[in-house]
Parts: sequence; structure tokens; C-alpha cells
Amino acid sequence: MNFKTILGSFFTNKNDLAKKIKNIVGFYPNDVFLFERALVHKSAVHDHTSSYKKSNERLEFLGDAVLGAVVADYLFKVYPNEDEGFLTKMRSKIVSRHSLNDLAKKIGLDHIVIARLDKKSKTDSIYGNAFEALIGAIYLDKGTKAAEKFILERVIHPYILLEKLEKEETNFKSRIIEWAQKEKRDLIFEILSEKGEGREKVFEACVKLDGKEVARGKEQSKKKAEQKAAEEFCKQFKILDE
Amino acid sequence: MNFKTILGSFFTNKNDLAKKIKNIVGFYPNDVFLFERALVHKSAVHDHTSSYKKSNERLEFLGDAVLGAVVADYLFKVYPNEDEGFLTKMRSKIVSRHSLNDLAKKIGLDHIVIARLDKKSKTDSIYGNAFEALIGAIYLDKGTKAAEKFILERVIHPYILLEKLEKEETNFKSRIIEWAQKEKRDLIFEILSEKGEGREKVFEACVKLDGKEVARGKEQSKKKAEQKAAEEFCKQFKILDE
Repeated sequence: MNFKTILGSFFTNKNDLAKKIKNIVGFYPNDVFLFERALVHKSAVHDHTSSYKKSNERLEFLGDAVLGAVVADYLFKVYPNEDEGFLTKMRSKIVSRHSLNDLAKKIGLDHIVIARLDKKSKTDSIYGNAFEALIGAIYLDKGTKAAEKFILERVIHPYILLEKLEKEETNFKSRIIEWAQKEKRDLIFEILSEKGEGREKVFEACVKLDGKEVARGKEQSKKKAEQKAAEEFCKQFKILDE
Repeated sequence: MNFKTILGSFFTNKNDLAKKIKNIVGFYPNDVFLFERALVHKSAVHDHTSSYKKSNERLEFLGDAVLGAVVADYLFKVYPNEDEGFLTKMRSKIVSRHSLNDLAKKIGLDHIVIARLDKKSKTDSIYGNAFEALIGAIYLDKGTKAAEKFILERVIHPYILLEKLEKEETNFKSRIIEWAQKEKRDLIFEILSEKGEGREKVFEACVKLDGKEVARGKEQSKKKAEQKAAEEFCKQFKILDE
């Protein structure tokens, strides 16, 4: 077991698991094995000594789509006068990898996820993925309405503050720096020019990827110009959709 | 009206529209105005003389999410033994811009879309977008089950041949060439090397974007190596998700 750590507990007792699931989702599952699978990260399967034969990835695929639809419907109704650009941005903020990991921890999923990882492994997305898989399990076990009820009553209403989210400026610069690190790409910012005086001052920044300029932005401060260039970069690489 | 063309007809009679909708979706709408909005491309709104005050973009946002969930559920159940990679690929093929435009035309949406466009404008996505908006309208008008029934019975079962789709190799090269044209980027393919002899021969191709190499692929023919490099490129730029 050198360099390995086991996250969460392996459930020997299905009643124990059913109780834990009930605390999180609000009902006892019909099919507790379905919910168990939702908790299994692929690292716990690849090991041939594991008693888990399949990971939660198929359930994650399903849950991701169900979550997307429920959040779209919710935002559509909460914001009857906003355009689709606003709705898309708000949804991205709610279902971003970062936000889903955070929500997963808030509802206590991190205590029951089943994974087997090197200590150095990135564990960032394990909880968010299990959260999506859990939604997939609820959807299969109890149907659309139950999945919707869980998402709204147990997740969005208690933990998503829309007013705060509306104002939250996405930090595009830190997002693309993270992205470049993950993708092992070389990314730098450069201030290209500085024109005008005082209040009229305008800076132009650019983002270079592997030495090649790919996006620009003009604004009244260096920081804002970089954010604008980074936002443009995000659009080109569809980084916020992740 | 120079250089302008009107696609579809403006409905003076709501009963006429309700009948046309019925022929496409299989039922008379409760709220015919909702369905009318689903047909309005933004080009018909921007003109201030237009009687259409809002476009179908919000409905498209909603319908896109509902369609994604219905297709995910459908594929999840049709393919109980395939992994999420397969399911994701199949869904991409079904909900790609190209496929949605095609499906929209098959169900006859192209005859009733309301748009006002320069002849030179790209009209590619108008029908697919209206198709998604129509799903949004059905969802709001009659609920989840009705949207699902429409998607499965009126679109997927008659027009999507899964066996054909499974075998269909995505033409990654043509996809990224299209993408680069749309984004006004400079994209070229290059064969980097050619090693070995006869059956052992291996070609390596790369894709350069604006003069900078961004993806590579190795295969036994030049054509296949280019496809592989283009596939890698698609992943990086998330082009198939569009």
C-alpha cells in the first residue's frame, strides 16, 4: 500500500451505505448498488484486486446532462428577462468543475467517495464527478422529478447564492493559467502598448500560447486589459465550458 | 428589400401556425406564441420594422439542454455496455450543428423559420438553432415527457440510424478546416516524417495554427496521420462539442 491512499470507506454493509445516501439525497434508494457505483472513481476499479468492477463514469455522463437541463430550466425561469448569454454564463459558473467539487464537499460526498489514488494524483475532479454520477443514479432510481428536487432543494437553494454569482467576475486570467499548466502549454501575458494620459489612458494586453499571440484585450488598467485578453482566450479555447 | 430575403412566411393567422406546428410536433400547442418565438431568428428582430420583438435564443438555450439530457438518457439505455467515451462520441454526432440542421430540415422546420438575412449570410445554423428552440417550447408548453416523446418518436427513431452512426468516422480534418475558416485562423497540415518500409511504414503529420504546431498524429498512411493529428486538435479546441 505504499504511495496509495484510500479515500472514503468501502462499504461492507449495504444498510450503512443506504443510510449515508439517505442523509445526502433525502430518501432511501431503491437500488443501493446503483448509488454505490456512483461513488466509485475509476482508480478503485483499475486495481484488479478491487471488488469494484465498474466506475461511475457512465453515470457521470448521464448525470452531467440531467444537471445541465435542470440548471438551464431553473435559470430560464428565475431570469425571465435576461438573454441567453447571461444564462449561459450563470450556468457555467454553477456547473464548472470547481463549483461542482465544492458542492460535492458541501453535501458530504467527499466522505463516501471510493477511490484509490497515489498521493500525488490530482484529486480535483473526483468529487464533482461523483456528484454528477449521483445525479445520474437518482435519475435512474427515482426519475426526473426526484433528480430535479434533489438538485434544487438539496444543492442549489442551500448553497448557490445567485446574487453573489451574478456579481462574481470570473477570473479569466487564473483560469487560463490553470488550464495551461494542466495542458502543459507555455502561456504568458504581455502589455503591448500604453496610450493616452490620465483618465484617457488605455492599455493593450495580449496572451501568448507557446510563443504565439492568440488573444488581445484593451482596457483602462493593465490588470483589466489582461483579464479582457484572457476572456477572449477562454472563448477561443472554450475553457469555461469545462 | 435589396439584398434581403425572407425565409419562411410571417404568420398572419395563428390557426395556420398552430396547424403547421401540429404537423411537426404531433399536437396542437397550448401557447402558440411560444412556438412562434421558437421560429424567430435574431435577424428578424434586429430590424426595427419587425413585428418580432424577441428572438428564439433563450428557448434555444433551454432546448439545447433538454435535448442533451434526452439523448444522453437514450444512449445510456440503448448501450448498456459501452463506456462514457463511446456515449459522448455518439451524442456529439447526434447533436452536432451539422446534424441538427439536417434534422431540422427533415422535420420541415426550414419552411417555417422566420429570418431576414442578407443572401450572403451564413444560414447554416439557423435551422438547428430553431430546432433546439422548438424543443424548448415543447418542454415549456407540455413538459418533460412531451419533449422526450417528440425527440424520440419524431426525430431519433425516424431519422437517426445508430448502426450507421457508430461506423461513421468523424472527418476531423474537414471539421477543423471549416472551424479555421469560420474563426479566420490560418491552418495547415504538414507531413513531418516518413519512417520504415512497406507494412511497417509510419507517417507523422502535424497541424499548424497560425504558423505554430499544435497537434501531431502518427499512422500508417499520410491521410490517417492527418486525421489523427486533426482529432487531437479537435480535443484541444473542443471543436466537436460545438
